[in-house]
This record gives sequence, structure tokens and C-alpha cells, in this order.
Amino acid sequence: ILEACSYHILCFCLQMGWGDLGVFGEPSKETPNLDLMAAQGMLFPNFYTANPLCSPSRAALLTGRLPVRNGFYTTNAHARNAYTPQEIVGGISQDEILLPELLKKKDYVSKIIGKWHLGHRTQYLPLKHGFDEWFGSPNCHFGPYNNSVRPNIPVYNNSEMTGRYYEEFEINVKTGESNLTQIYLKEGLDFISQQAVAQRPFFLYWVPDATHSPVYASERFLGKSQRGRYGDAVMELDGSIGQILAHLVSLGIHNNTLVFFTSDNGAAVMSGPHQSGSNGPFLCGKETTFEGGMREPAIAWWPGRIPAGTVSYQLASVMDLFSTSLSVAGVLPPDDRVIDGLDLSPVLFNNSLLDRPIFYYRGNQMMAVRIGQYKVHYWTWSNSWEEFNTGINFCPGQEVPGVTTHTQEEHTMQPLIFHLGQDPGERYPISVQSEEYRDVHRQVTAVVEQHQKDLIPGMPQLNMCDLAVMNWSPPGCEQLGKCLKPPESNPWKCVWPH
Amino acid sequence: ILEACSYHILCFCLQMGWGDLGVFGEPSKETPNLDLMAAQGMLFPNFYTANPLCSPSRAALLTGRLPVRNGFYTTNAHARNAYTPQEIVGGISQDEILLPELLKKKDYVSKIIGKWHLGHRTQYLPLKHGFDEWFGSPNCHFGPYNNSVRPNIPVYNNSEMTGRYYEEFEINVKTGESNLTQIYLKEGLDFISQQAVAQRPFFLYWVPDATHSPVYASERFLGKSQRGRYGDAVMELDGSIGQILAHLVSLGIHNNTLVFFTSDNGAAVMSGPHQSGSNGPFLCGKETTFEGGMREPAIAWWPGRIPAGTVSYQLASVMDLFSTSLSVAGVLPPDDRVIDGLDLSPVLFNNSLLDRPIFYYRGNQMMAVRIGQYKVHYWTWSNSWEEFNTGINFCPGQEVPGVTTHTQEEHTMQPLIFHLGQDPGERYPISVQSEEYRDVHRQVTAVVEQHQKDLIPGMPQLNMCDLAVMNWSPPGCEQLGKCLKPPESNPWKCVWPH
Repeated sequence: ILEACSYHILCFCLQMGWGDLGVFGEPSKETPNLDLMAAQGMLFPNFYTANPLCSPSRAALLTGRLPVRNGFYTTNAHARNAYTPQEIVGGISQDEILLPELLKKKDYVSKIIGKWHLGHRTQYLPLKHGFDEWFGSPNCHFGPYNNSVRPNIPVYNNSEMTGRYYEEFEINVKTGESNLTQIYLKEGLDFISQQAVAQRPFFLYWVPDATHSPVYASERFLGKSQRGRYGDAVMELDGSIGQILAHLVSLGIHNNTLVFFTSDNGAAVMSGPHQSGSNGPFLCGKETTFEGGMREPAIAWWPGRIPAGTVSYQLASVMDLFSTSLSVAGVLPPDDRVIDGLDLSPVLFNNSLLDRPIFYYRGNQMMAVRIGQYKVHYWTWSNSWEEFNTGINFCPGQEVPGVTTHTQEEHTMQPLIFHLGQDPGERYPISVQSEEYRDVHRQVTAVVEQHQKDLIPGMPQLNMCDLAVMNWSPPGCEQLGKCLKPPESNPWKCVWPH
Repeated sequence: ILEACSYHILCFCLQMGWGDLGVFGEPSKETPNLDLMAAQGMLFPNFYTANPLCSPSRAALLTGRLPVRNGFYTTNAHARNAYTPQEIVGGISQDEILLPELLKKKDYVSKIIGKWHLGHRTQYLPLKHGFDEWFGSPNCHFGPYNNSVRPNIPVYNNSEMTGRYYEEFEINVKTGESNLTQIYLKEGLDFISQQAVAQRPFFLYWVPDATHSPVYASERFLGKSQRGRYGDAVMELDGSIGQILAHLVSLGIHNNTLVFFTSDNGAAVMSGPHQSGSNGPFLCGKETTFEGGMREPAIAWWPGRIPAGTVSYQLASVMDLFSTSLSVAGVLPPDDRVIDGLDLSPVLFNNSLLDRPIFYYRGNQMMAVRIGQYKVHYWTWSNSWEEFNTGINFCPGQEVPGVTTHTQEEHTMQPLIFHLGQDPGERYPISVQSEEYRDVHRQVTAVVEQHQKDLIPGMPQLNMCDLAVMNWSPPGCEQLGKCLKPPESNPWKCVWPH
């Protein structure tokens, strides 16, 4: 007999914005399954990712630790977001302990379906870090590439590639058609069925990338949304999650399954209306430490355990999913390192509210911190004038003087403070003359000092790039006849403009 | 035995924004009663007011006609919003036929509770225009005034004043405390009870003003919201609507009652975070013809008739409430004039979608029109540089180059076109080079030409002002000893800066 929570499913969608769900006010209201999931579960309007960019968020989720601790950051320049393109040399450190490794103690079978993004060189791949199965890609589905200057991204089936995007796995960049979400869905449903039949506890990390540029949807969904192609992709993900939940119910294991839905960073609003979603009423998006960059849609679902139709105002983070998964699996977290994740069990099961700060980092620079309703900005930056003047805008249509700055502005001595309840859009800094300001400043200073005192930065993994490390010859390429010849190694310090 | 829909209740809240409801994504999720009303009824994400300012919206709702037809506009300057402050000379024309006048044909008893705003001189008051009962004020609850330069606003009980704001009816502008919403709620519940007992069909027009600056709430709600005082006011209105619906159920008349909730204009975002709400993902707010100025939260509720938990994408307007009320009451609309309202019965009862445009006016200038998902701007304007430079900003934190213009910009020959499904924030004009642009332009040109061909503007009512017409000596002041001496009449052309 399996214990109460034997199954964990994390649906971690790529750069879906807070405002992309009907339940969070998307005007087209095209996410009936996610809205129903919220009606049957718990909605988190104050849920955050650990970084406004994909790779560090994922590393934080799977380690329960801030990127600055787990090494998913760069020191090449001040306050820059870094990630894992094909030319990245680094990846998840051997010293980090990932959630699936820990769940093994209770015999969980773990599978990742979709984008990994924690390093694509052999030693960094999922099956080397606790996952038992994998179907998906190590990097973003950018492309198509010509395979001489840049290889197309491989798709792995477990530890060997089974093809490449734009080759065996089609994505039509013109029409936006691709069957990938359906493939990922089938992989997910099959995995669930197999474990349920075998009565093995499982952890499914379902990480589809349809909402990441180039956005795609399968034929059945293309053109169906009022929101264009991005909306089509959202509808297909919504439908897939609906099928996953229905599958759990049909297998009769829904009362033993914790399902969590969230996203890795805010909507990529710089990509315009066709390739990006909505951050609702929040400021800016992906790449920034404004609310639009890091506040995420989030829903927890566990029929019979999590009270239906509840809203939790808990300040929560993707890193909490690490701690919460361990807790409900009955596994102790590592005690030899700082874990930033919080066990949300009291929140999920008793709607408790736990006091905790949220830290907003860009690279290894803490840009801002939230305590209670207050957000305190020590540094502000959208993107550089240089980039902005070429038309790249991280806050299209939004401009708050002195806040959405195009130079990195330090406010350490006199931070900008916002009340997010009254001013979710971060438009009206609280007067530095007010008692409210002084009170918050005093409280937050203590929190930040404590945080910084304990902080031991990890070895930065995202500093070096090299064309030779790209996906030229992934494991398994020989059998497929798909090995490509890498260029000479010529490493350089990666340039991170944001 | 009364017919199917014998009771109509319109809750018309003041300048609540589209984004102020939990169901429309307000992050604090503090409107459980309205969210439940939506879950039991039909939600309208594409619902519009007829003008981005209060008085003209109300006149449009009660006449079913655009302000440019019913006279609620000014010709003193180009494209200006006008309303009914105390010094206004005009009001609702005797030639206009109001909804309660028509409902009399079926013996409806009509009551308005709250702000009237269709003119405060004796001939313009509600009981002269079809209402049987009134409790509330003719103008905004601005003040306190000193009663020598400006009189405090009277509160009427039917055709006579029963006191004044800041005198008999307290509003503490410092603390934000006032019991007015509770008074209005009690008036509403009592009216409903009386008509239900007497089995008389009724129309209740419930128009509380707690969310209009100066925002207020009663002691029980003050400080309760995560959103500050404005949120307190919203919570109290939400609670009141919950009580009204519960009262209908307890009287057993909910299956005979159509209740509609909406708002008169977008959130007054120029008033900062303490006195204004949220327009969610939309651009700008009150006073503007961007979505934030005119798209409104809207919910229809009629258990047993309107299917529960439905979303209608119908483009709808406050003027439709006129036509729909008449339709469900079995009254024919006037046939001697153009009615802009649409009978929403097929939408409410069969979730049909009716083709119709939405016109966005500022004064007598059609600034924009929506057909389907497309919005076409012929004129753009936020507010003047002169005002903007004094710190008055109708789009705080938002700026879309060439769109949120501070001069009145004409685009008649080459209008700005947005796809609101893909771009609800009106940030990305569709390329004039595209086929999509040409198609939409052609379609909309036909619609606009038809509209303008049929348009007979009403006599403008909002041109003249005079201090002598202010609320110095409203009917009933003698008995109360509250008559004030008016100054000499000295009319002038009102100045409408917006």
C-alpha cells in the first residue's frame, strides 16, 4: 500500500505570465482546465520564481536553493541574467543534490518530460542527476540551425538522443505548427499509467516549451485562440493539463497525487504580442526583477487533502516545491547546506501563512526583496540604453520614471519601497519621509543583513562559453548517423547583456 | 402571479475598474461575492461603458442611447468629457425616455439608491423621470464645502432633501469612514422586501459611490483590505452585493430576478493608489478612450435562466441593459428614435454572439470603434501637456509612443488599429502595410459611415455653468432649516479640460 502522497507532478511551463490564466484575469478566458484546477485546489497569487530567466529558475526548483548558491549565475558583469545556451560550458554542479536524487530514498521513479536546461554536456544531463527517465531537450528549441555553424537541438529519450528539433521533430516556424506538446502529453500519460499499474511512487517533472519563442501548437489548436499563436499554445497546454488531471482521476490515484502548476519566469513581453504572454497588472516581464519578471501563476491540486477553491496569500517560491515535495514524501532535506525552499505543507493543508522574504536576484546581485506586502528595490534596471535604442524593450508600453531605469541604478542607501497590495504595478514609491517607509526600511534591513551574512555563493557555472561544447555529437548520435563535427575548442567569457 | 422576470436590479458601481474583481485577476482576490455571482451567472470580459466619465455613462444606461444622442456632452471644445458638477445648468432632456418610464407600462416600481448624476436642478431629478423612489445624492460626494462658496451635496429621500453630506451624512475624509454604503444597502434590502411582499414587479437601480474619490468604507471594513482604503470600499460593495443576492434567495424570488453588475467608467488611475482601482492589463483609465477608460467588469445573474459559470465574449455595453431590461419585461422600446442598446436576451439565455460595434466617444468626437477583436483609433489623446506637466497623468506608469498622446492626434486618414485579443494593452499597432490592416480598415469604414449617416446629435446639455444653480436650496430645505442663499446668476461656458 502506498502512502498518502505517492505521486508528485510538477507542471512547469515556460515563461507563461501571471496574467495568462483566466483565473488571473486573462480577458479571453481560455484556460478552463487550469481555472478548474484552481477551483478544485489552491491558488497562489503571490508565487515567485527564483530568477527572471529560465535556467536559474529550474536549477532553483530542483535544488531548493537560490541560483547564487547553486551556481546558476555569472560573475562576468554586474547584475546579469545568464542561462544555458548551446555554447555554455557549465551546468548543474556535481555538489548540488537534486529533488529526484532525494526522492530515491523513498523509491520514487522520476521522469522529466521537456526542457532540461541545467547544462547539456554529458555530465550535466538529467539521468546523471537523479532522474530515471527523460524525454525532451537539453536546451531551448531555438532554430532551425544549419548544423554547421550551430547544430539543431537534440531530443533525448533517456540518456541518448533520438533525433533533433527541425529534423525528426518538426516545428514549422512559419505556421507555428508542431506536435511536440502532444508527444510530451502522451509521454506523461504513459509514464503515469506505468507507475500506477506498478504501484510505484513517482515524480513527474512535466516541462513543455510550447509557450517559449518560437511558440507552437498542434494542428487542432492552431488558430483556435482569440489571442493568436501564443494563445493557441496556452490552450494546448491547458488542455494537456486537463487530460493529465483526468487521467489521475480515471486511474483512481488523484487522492494520492500532489500536482503543482507554475511557470519559470514572467511573460517575455519584449517579444511582442505574437510570441509572448501577459503579466496582467504587473510591471515589465522576463529578464527584470519587477513583478512582471518573477511573479508567476501557481496552482496546487490534491483532491481530498488541499481544500478546494481556496486562495493562499502565502509568499511562495519555486524553491518551496523542492521542500514541499520532500516533506510530503517523508524525506528529510539535506542538512549540510542552506535550503531556501519552505515546506508549504501547513499552507496547503491548513491554509497557514508563514512569514518569509522573497529575494529578487539578477545574477549574483540582490536587486530587491519582498517582505509582507512591501517590496524594496536596492537596484533597478530594465535593459541598457544601447539595447533599448535598437528596439529591445523589456517593459513595452510601461515606463515608471526612476523605476524602469535603463541604467543600473543603485538605491542601496535609500531603496525604493512599494506596497504591492495597494500598488501591484510598482508605480508609486512610498515617500521616504513617511513613518511607513522608515518602519519597512528598518525591518527589511534586518532581513537582508541576515540573508547576506549566511550567503556562501556557489561556484558560478555560467561564465564560460565555447562553440566546441554545442550539441554536435550527443550520446546516441552514432546509431542515428547524426553526429556532427565540432570546431576546435576556443572558450571565451560569455557575454550576458541583460 | 408575476411573470418570469419581474425584478431587475442594476448594480452600477462608480469607477470600479475591470481589474478590480478577483475573477478578473485582482491579485488580492477580495471580491468573493462578485466572484461567486460570476460562478453562478455569466461573465462579460468584453463589456463597455458608453463614455469614460460618469454622467454620460449613466444617461446612456438609462436612455439606451449614446451621450451624443441623448445630449450628455459638450460642444465647448473638441473631444472633451463633460459631466454634472453642481454648477452645471443642464441635465437630462425632457425629450429623453428613461428605462423606468417605460417599465411603468408593466407596472414596475422603480427606485434609485445612490448617485443620480443626470442633473440636479428640480426638473432633472429622478422622480421627474420615471423613478418612483429615490434615496441618494444628485451629484458626487465631493466636499466638505463651506456652504458659502459651495454648498455640501444634498441627500434626497424621494423628492425632498433629507440632509447633506458631511453634515447629516458623515464622511470622514481623513479616516475614510462613512456608513453610507450600509445605508444604501439597507435601503435596497428594504425596497426589495416591500415589493416582494406586495408582489409588485420592481426595478432597483443601486448606484453606490464608495469607490469614487473620496473613497470610504464603514468601520467594519476599514483597514481590512490588502489594497488599502480603496480595497476596503470594494470589499464593502462586494459584501453588500452578496447580501442583496442572498436576500433574493431568502425571499424566494431569485428565479424571477435579473441582476446585473457593472461600473460607469474605468478606474481613476490618475488618483494614485489610494483613491483608485485597477484596470488590469488595459491601457490608461477614466477620461480616456483606451480600454482602461471604458472596458468594465460585468456580471449577469439570474438563477435558472442564465446558465451558471458561463463566459460571454459578446461585445456589450451599458446601453444594452436598457434594451435587455425592456425585453425581459416585455416592453417595446421607443420606435421614434435611434436606440444604441442591444437586447442581450439571446446572449444571456443561449450564449449567442451578436455582431455589433462599440463606439468610443469623448464629447461628440468618436475617438475609436471596436469591431470584433479589432479596435480602430481615429483620434488619440490622454491629457494635455499643460495638465500633464502639473502632475495629472491619465496613464500613470504607461506610455505607448504615438498612442497615449498628450496632444489630440488625428488619425482619420490612417487610423491606428489594434487586435485586442492578441494585444489587450493597445501597445502594438498593426502594420498599415498588412493585408489584415487593409481588411479591417475597409470593414470598419463601412460601419463608421453608416453610424455617422444616422447620427442626429442631441442638444448638448453640458455647455453652460452657473454658480447660482448649485444645491443651495433643494426642495425640502425649508423644513430642515437648511436653505442657503444662492449668488446672483452669472452663467458661463463650462471649461472641460479633458
